[in-house]
Amino acid sequence: MVNVGIVGGSGYTGGELIRILSNHPKVEITTITSRKYEGQSVEKVHPHIRDSDLIFENKNAEDFEEDIIFTATPHGASMKIIPDIIEKTDAKIIDLSGDYRFEDYEVYEKWYNLKHTKHIDSVYGLPELHRKEIAKERLIANPGCFTTGAILSGYPLSKKQYADRMIFDSKTGVSGAGIKPSEATHYPNIADNVNPYKVTTHRHTPEIQQELQRYSDVKISFTPILVPVLRGILTTNHTILKEEDFDFETKEQREDTSKKIEELYRNIYKDEPFVKILSEGEIPRLSSVRGSNYIHIGCFEVDQTGQLVVISAIDNLVKGASGQAIENMNIMCGFDEKTGLDFFGLHP
Amino acid sequence: MVNVGIVGGSGYTGGELIRILSNHPKVEITTITSRKYEGQSVEKVHPHIRDSDLIFENKNAEDFEEDIIFTATPHGASMKIIPDIIEKTDAKIIDLSGDYRFEDYEVYEKWYNLKHTKHIDSVYGLPELHRKEIAKERLIANPGCFTTGAILSGYPLSKKQYADRMIFDSKTGVSGAGIKPSEATHYPNIADNVNPYKVTTHRHTPEIQQELQRYSDVKISFTPILVPVLRGILTTNHTILKEEDFDFETKEQREDTSKKIEELYRNIYKDEPFVKILSEGEIPRLSSVRGSNYIHIGCFEVDQTGQLVVISAIDNLVKGASGQAIENMNIMCGFDEKTGLDFFGLHP
Amino acid sequence: MVNVGIVGGSGYTGGELIRILSNHPKVEITTITSRKYEGQSVEKVHPHIRDSDLIFENKNAEDFEEDIIFTATPHGASMKIIPDIIEKTDAKIIDLSGDYRFEDYEVYEKWYNLKHTKHIDSVYGLPELHRKEIAKERLIANPGCFTTGAILSGYPLSKKQYADRMIFDSKTGVSGAGIKPSEATHYPNIADNVNPYKVTTHRHTPEIQQELQRYSDVKISFTPILVPVLRGILTTNHTILKEEDFDFETKEQREDTSKKIEELYRNIYKDEPFVKILSEGEIPRLSSVRGSNYIHIGCFEVDQTGQLVVISAIDNLVKGASGQAIENMNIMCGFDEKTGLDFFGLHP
Amino acid sequence: MVNVGIVGGSGYTGGELIRILSNHPKVEITTITSRKYEGQSVEKVHPHIRDSDLIFENKNAEDFEEDIIFTATPHGASMKIIPDIIEKTDAKIIDLSGDYRFEDYEVYEKWYNLKHTKHIDSVYGLPELHRKEIAKERLIANPGCFTTGAILSGYPLSKKQYADRMIFDSKTGVSGAGIKPSEATHYPNIADNVNPYKVTTHRHTPEIQQELQRYSDVKISFTPILVPVLRGILTTNHTILKEEDFDFETKEQREDTSKKIEELYRNIYKDEPFVKILSEGEIPRLSSVRGSNYIHIGCFEVDQTGQLVVISAIDNLVKGASGQAIENMNIMCGFDEKTGLDFFGLHP
Repeated sequence: MVNVGIVGGSGYTGGELIRILSNHPKVEITTITSRKYEGQSVEKVHPHIRDSDLIFENKNAEDFEEDIIFTATPHGASMKIIPDIIEKTDAKIIDLSGDYRFEDYEVYEKWYNLKHTKHIDSVYGLPELHRKEIAKERLIANPGCFTTGAILSGYPLSKKQYADRMIFDSKTGVSGAGIKPSEATHYPNIADNVNPYKVTTHRHTPEIQQELQRYSDVKISFTPILVPVLRGILTTNHTILKEEDFDFETKEQREDTSKKIEELYRNIYKDEPFVKILSEGEIPRLSSVRGSNYIHIGCFEVDQTGQLVVISAIDNLVKGASGQAIENMNIMCGFDEKTGLDFFGLHP
Repeated sequence: MVNVGIVGGSGYTGGELIRILSNHPKVEITTITSRKYEGQSVEKVHPHIRDSDLIFENKNAEDFEEDIIFTATPHGASMKIIPDIIEKTDAKIIDLSGDYRFEDYEVYEKWYNLKHTKHIDSVYGLPELHRKEIAKERLIANPGCFTTGAILSGYPLSKKQYADRMIFDSKTGVSGAGIKPSEATHYPNIADNVNPYKVTTHRHTPEIQQELQRYSDVKISFTPILVPVLRGILTTNHTILKEEDFDFETKEQREDTSKKIEELYRNIYKDEPFVKILSEGEIPRLSSVRGSNYIHIGCFEVDQTGQLVVISAIDNLVKGASGQAIENMNIMCGFDEKTGLDFFGLHP
Repeated sequence: MVNVGIVGGSGYTGGELIRILSNHPKVEITTITSRKYEGQSVEKVHPHIRDSDLIFENKNAEDFEEDIIFTATPHGASMKIIPDIIEKTDAKIIDLSGDYRFEDYEVYEKWYNLKHTKHIDSVYGLPELHRKEIAKERLIANPGCFTTGAILSGYPLSKKQYADRMIFDSKTGVSGAGIKPSEATHYPNIADNVNPYKVTTHRHTPEIQQELQRYSDVKISFTPILVPVLRGILTTNHTILKEEDFDFETKEQREDTSKKIEELYRNIYKDEPFVKILSEGEIPRLSSVRGSNYIHIGCFEVDQTGQLVVISAIDNLVKGASGQAIENMNIMCGFDEKTGLDFFGLHP
Repeated sequence: MVNVGIVGGSGYTGGELIRILSNHPKVEITTITSRKYEGQSVEKVHPHIRDSDLIFENKNAEDFEEDIIFTATPHGASMKIIPDIIEKTDAKIIDLSGDYRFEDYEVYEKWYNLKHTKHIDSVYGLPELHRKEIAKERLIANPGCFTTGAILSGYPLSKKQYADRMIFDSKTGVSGAGIKPSEATHYPNIADNVNPYKVTTHRHTPEIQQELQRYSDVKISFTPILVPVLRGILTTNHTILKEEDFDFETKEQREDTSKKIEELYRNIYKDEPFVKILSEGEIPRLSSVRGSNYIHIGCFEVDQTGQLVVISAIDNLVKGASGQAIENMNIMCGFDEKTGLDFFGLHP
């Protein structure tokens, strides 16, 4: 058994780590920390977790004896604790914050408006793009929730240099805003409303750029939108195709283009355990992936202007956070990647 | 008092016509028809309308004695009844279907897959663009719900020839699907989901094209998305600006561009009774216009790729249907345009 | 024109007072106060109210020159400001807090855990029970949102001494919790959940008791339940009938009992402008009264145990708060009671 | 491995059987039937189930070779197929309809308005009450969704003869109405509404009576209420305690009574794998059991009238249907009762 610690386990991603790891046959959670809830049982904060013996602790980095540590801490906080854990323990670390996601630290400092304190080698923890490096690295920067849905919906097109521009219009459930109440999460402000926010300035933008612009100079725009949904991100990727590569004047040409692109996605993702390419005419839906680590990708429709729409659906707390973190752990530990994650979504 | 008839009054737009006209000081509803509910009182179908004397009738065109007739009938049905009303009565008509919205009937026949039976002069009933013609015409084709929010969010940019391309990602409440239950409106399929549909092939696309391409050759893409909301359409207009007209490399340039565009909107809409341009930093929200005839437009943010985002919010059943129909009636009758429509939205 | 002031106008009830009074033909809002938002325009807080000239002020009691003052202040705050207004101005006051609702101040002090500072004559502002006194009194204590729906659903039975016991299981929308975010109103805690709270200890219990036990010694139990709804309170009144008055063994007896009770309600409320008794088989629904001042009452089914169910629906912010306050104002000013309130609910 | 067949697998309970059994280590689904979807793959109907080889078949009773058959057929349909399966195969059967739930067939015929065609020995499949009989019987009548939450919330009180009367006010999610669209499940009729229905005449009433009146002559009333929730039933059990057994005049007496009753529940359910008695002050919530087979029971508050409130929460499709059916299967097969069901709810 691999021993696992969770640092900052009182938020929603902490709750999901516990929920999923409770059924993981090869690991045991031996430590969970929360300064705020020190001494309290986990079920006080996570009312669905019952009969667990876990008690929130307040613990120093040097006292961790775990093999794997998940840091479910906010950005800024992660980079204060991770260097210590790296130095004083042998643990491998999967960080759920934004602190180690950027290859260029100046990008981080500009978008997060924080000085980066300590540079450590890390890998961007999106298995579909970086599986091999994840297996070898000690610190994994788990991707942002929006970025997972966006990058995987655009990666094949960027890799093939088919896209001139991608506009991501991403609809997110409210659990993405975290467990702490705010005006933005006040029920009467969310219900029966659709709330775009940080329309061109969200911090996940440079993450999407970093990963998709590895392969081509595609222009990236990103708009996040809060919708009255608990979990899930549905990303509408509006891609402007390069005119030289595709035809889209007649209905037949558009259907051919659609098929060609669907085929490309099927090929690129054919061995991926958690990526499902839907059949023609089927639109990804949040309920199909609710609570699960799957990403569904589909649509691939093209219109007469050469605009292609690709749609992806994930659970923001699972493939968009804790599930993907566990997937990374499986890779780092040499487990089958689906271990503990092999369950379907909760539809309806 | 002007006498008003409603043909096909058992749907949501019929209910809204009654709700709003009940407080209109210059008109009286004297006839309401529904073949399905003939002989039944209005409150059986519209449970919020109480103590009205209205009974659903089944009536022939020649028997209408009203001054104004709203046809809240489905497309295909309107063009069967309207020519008769035109011929056999003196009534002015406001049609809520798509049958008379297209100047080029071939466009209608292609997108609606129906033979158009009878060509009659009509005006596209968007007061902000066609007020003068509306005042003079006998048949008004009331715009589609999506198109109102889309066109008004893009009109100033098209008029000024500033836009290369507009991608409308429009989130609609479920009342837009009508009063009749279907798989698409089954609660477990909508709640906690976000459902794109007819992603590049929705019939409102050619309507948006017709109105916005009057002024420039802007490329138009449109994707409708069903969200778990009762009423309202929030349109995210992703516009690709023409590079020669604007700068957007530095933060200052982007802010200047935003201001210039906001100013343009304020100018063009400055005398419009139902268009509100929000201040910088304020995002339109559905609850602010819920139940009202207002459209709120705002955001105007530009990113480094030259993508501008304009956001609009309307109530799909009011400014997107029945309220706008009454606004058209006010114009046709020479009433003040706000008569009976001068009330705010229901927030929260 | 009657001049109106609103004290503490930055909450939801303040917003509703403005929304409704904006269309009231006989009054004008001349002052609105908020310490927190002093100097800001009303639309910053109430985004649906546009182009109003109202600016939040911070004002002393002696400076009010209005004829009518609504105090939309929290309990405890009202009793600090109202005695001053009474003393230093000629204004009539309608208080939306709980401070002056109780004839027995000890009941208030016990349930609100506050010392009552100043006893002033007041009337419980439920027009259906106290219309005549309201017309003559200077200070009106506007009822609580839950109590309006509960009392009116039980009043005829208590008056006739037909009930041994009433259990109110009342489902409320989240706007009842106010504009301020809290854990209880955090979207992920409300959506897809049903949250009973203060199950036997809610402060509206003694209010319901005070009004219903005027007429009989009916036992009163009350359980409030937060449901994922924006507005509205649906009250299920489970009444245990006195066995000597009714028969309910056979189906025919139960149907007779139902009819007899429905008739009783129709009689007692026959002249009430805002009470609608629904027909047999029709269940009150929140959407029918959404945004309006109506209360719908219906059901009247009896089962074999002698349990009668009466159901009522109101909008908690209108008939449950601001609408009823304006109804009280109309009575105090000698206006027709429906003035400014004569509009239907927003269904769907 | 035990082979399992599902008859009528295209509804929500069918989907849940597949979802849960996919992770059950000791069984394999070898047949799933649906006349409507014959020949189609399961993922066409259940979009969350991916890469399953299951194809809907149309099959006669004599062709089933499975060890266990779940009949997820509507009432009326089950009693047409089950006698055949009993006669022509060796399979054990768990029926999810109401057809075999009643010991007195006349009760069935009266409430379901159907002639019962074939009487077969069966056990009411509520493990907490009938575990031993379930282990021995060939046909299990899986309980109704409402009844599971109601019976388990009242069983200890009835067993101890503490209750004079129980009024169940049960709030259900819309998935309980099934996969087929209807006016009752049309999104605009559900969202922002609370819909009581069959207020005193729901078919689950006699089921609750049958099970709770085994132990005492407690009077039973039941009101089902549709709320805008996907999954889950929250039952508010308003119990009138027998006055001779408890005191509730003073606060101390009420607290003592609460504790005594909480203790009773802890004792009676102490060995139950899926019943969790919550601590004082904690209210059961739907999200804590969402997707899981647990029932949470709590509250136990008493008021001055001697009314006790007990609250229970279940997932209507799991403990209220398919999960409990699998629990029954585990008992029938001699597996550990938690096999395949040992996972927590999906909160938030």
